[in-house]
Amino acid sequence: MIDKRVYPFSVEPQNVDFTLHATAASICTAMLNTAGVDAHLHGFGVDTLTQDNMSWVLSRMAVEIEALPPQYTSYNVSTWVNEAGRMLTTRNFEATAADGTCYARGVTQWCLIDFTNRRPVALDVIEQMQACMTAAPSPCAAPRKLRPVEATRTVQHRVAYSDIDFNRHMNTMRYVDLMMDMLPIERLADHTPLRLDVHFLHESCFGQVLTVGCRDTATGTLFEICRDDAASACLASVEWRPQK
Amino acid sequence: MIDKRVYPFSVEPQNVDFTLHATAASICTAMLNTAGVDAHLHGFGVDTLTQDNMSWVLSRMAVEIEALPPQYTSYNVSTWVNEAGRMLTTRNFEATAADGTCYARGVTQWCLIDFTNRRPVALDVIEQMQACMTAAPSPCAAPRKLRPVEATRTVQHRVAYSDIDFNRHMNTMRYVDLMMDMLPIERLADHTPLRLDVHFLHESCFGQVLTVGCRDTATGTLFEICRDDAASACLASVEWRPQK
Repeated sequence: MIDKRVYPFSVEPQNVDFTLHATAASICTAMLNTAGVDAHLHGFGVDTLTQDNMSWVLSRMAVEIEALPPQYTSYNVSTWVNEAGRMLTTRNFEATAADGTCYARGVTQWCLIDFTNRRPVALDVIEQMQACMTAAPSPCAAPRKLRPVEATRTVQHRVAYSDIDFNRHMNTMRYVDLMMDMLPIERLADHTPLRLDVHFLHESCFGQVLTVGCRDTATGTLFEICRDDAASACLASVEWRPQK
Repeated sequence: MIDKRVYPFSVEPQNVDFTLHATAASICTAMLNTAGVDAHLHGFGVDTLTQDNMSWVLSRMAVEIEALPPQYTSYNVSTWVNEAGRMLTTRNFEATAADGTCYARGVTQWCLIDFTNRRPVALDVIEQMQACMTAAPSPCAAPRKLRPVEATRTVQHRVAYSDIDFNRHMNTMRYVDLMMDMLPIERLADHTPLRLDVHFLHESCFGQVLTVGCRDTATGTLFEICRDDAASACLASVEWRPQK
């Protein structure tokens, strides 16, 4: 058992939107970068895993944004792993101001993939992770169940050089950008608190054309991003939450 | 007269491409962020100028990339202003490794805009800048002359929430992303040294549909990005340079 770890961040010009506050996507990026660095520092990072031809794959993500820090603000992201099932592990995040005010909470679920057969691997092979658990609850509800969406609006996007990660797959956070770009800009300008749930189902490769479909509900918007072979790359939901 | 100033950077996961090296665009972003912070620290940043309803506008940019640092590398960006004409000022950059090896050089030309009439202002109103000149030559040739392009390939892009700056205009660096996305990915994978020249002509607003047109030449690619009213938003050139 170990304590939560804390990593410092700062809101740089490339992280803000037209309101000069951090975007929700940039806070999610900070959380995922924290995951990468924290796993590395504890001996189960991607650098170690690739030696055995394995890697972490983000399966599900839930993020609740309470407030968005303005440009050049310093903030902290704390992270801890509190669950490791047979195939899925849960990593948590809290993004907070220097005075402890909460900007955002996050819960992510990861699986381990063997690149030789592209299949999931049981987590007990990662002994270093078992020593790195923290007995603290997740800061918000786990990623919720999502279903395919009958879209009422769609846009298309070809996966380009600036979108791809080291596997030549669409970068996780670019999916979030594509979804945010379909939301009402006034709601984003107001910094209305929101909850984002995403399930990553199939990777999209360089050159594929994605269809981003969405449907508005009473409290938010549901998304499904499909590849050109009709497979679903991800399902997601954005829900607006009451202002405090 | 003052010395060059040096600002530290690090190649974060969101700055790399599929080769796990920094993208050329991320090095340009680091340069522009350095410009913002350096102007702020010397009393002529956007924060001060907006009090008088003015702002800096990037007019032309030339960047030569020699090499691209791998993920998590620390590097430095030095900057200095060595010219202030009546309407245009020149700010220079060098991005270097800890051992002094050059990653990239940049020369940018800026004008000052009065938002009340959207017209350029003579630079002598900015007294703080006159005290902040450095008698050092620019590290590479100034931005070169560019002409409209008869495109042989085009893609379209609608200016979205994730593209815009505080003026609700397309962010400078998103133009560069759009252009890089049209280059041969093998050349980008090889880290072939390149020179990028961009002229920013007209702003593009949220919701406008841009046409990114390009034409390959013997040594590189020429670009013109047009708005849906046919005005040219920017002209650019990428030239591949000999490997050293």
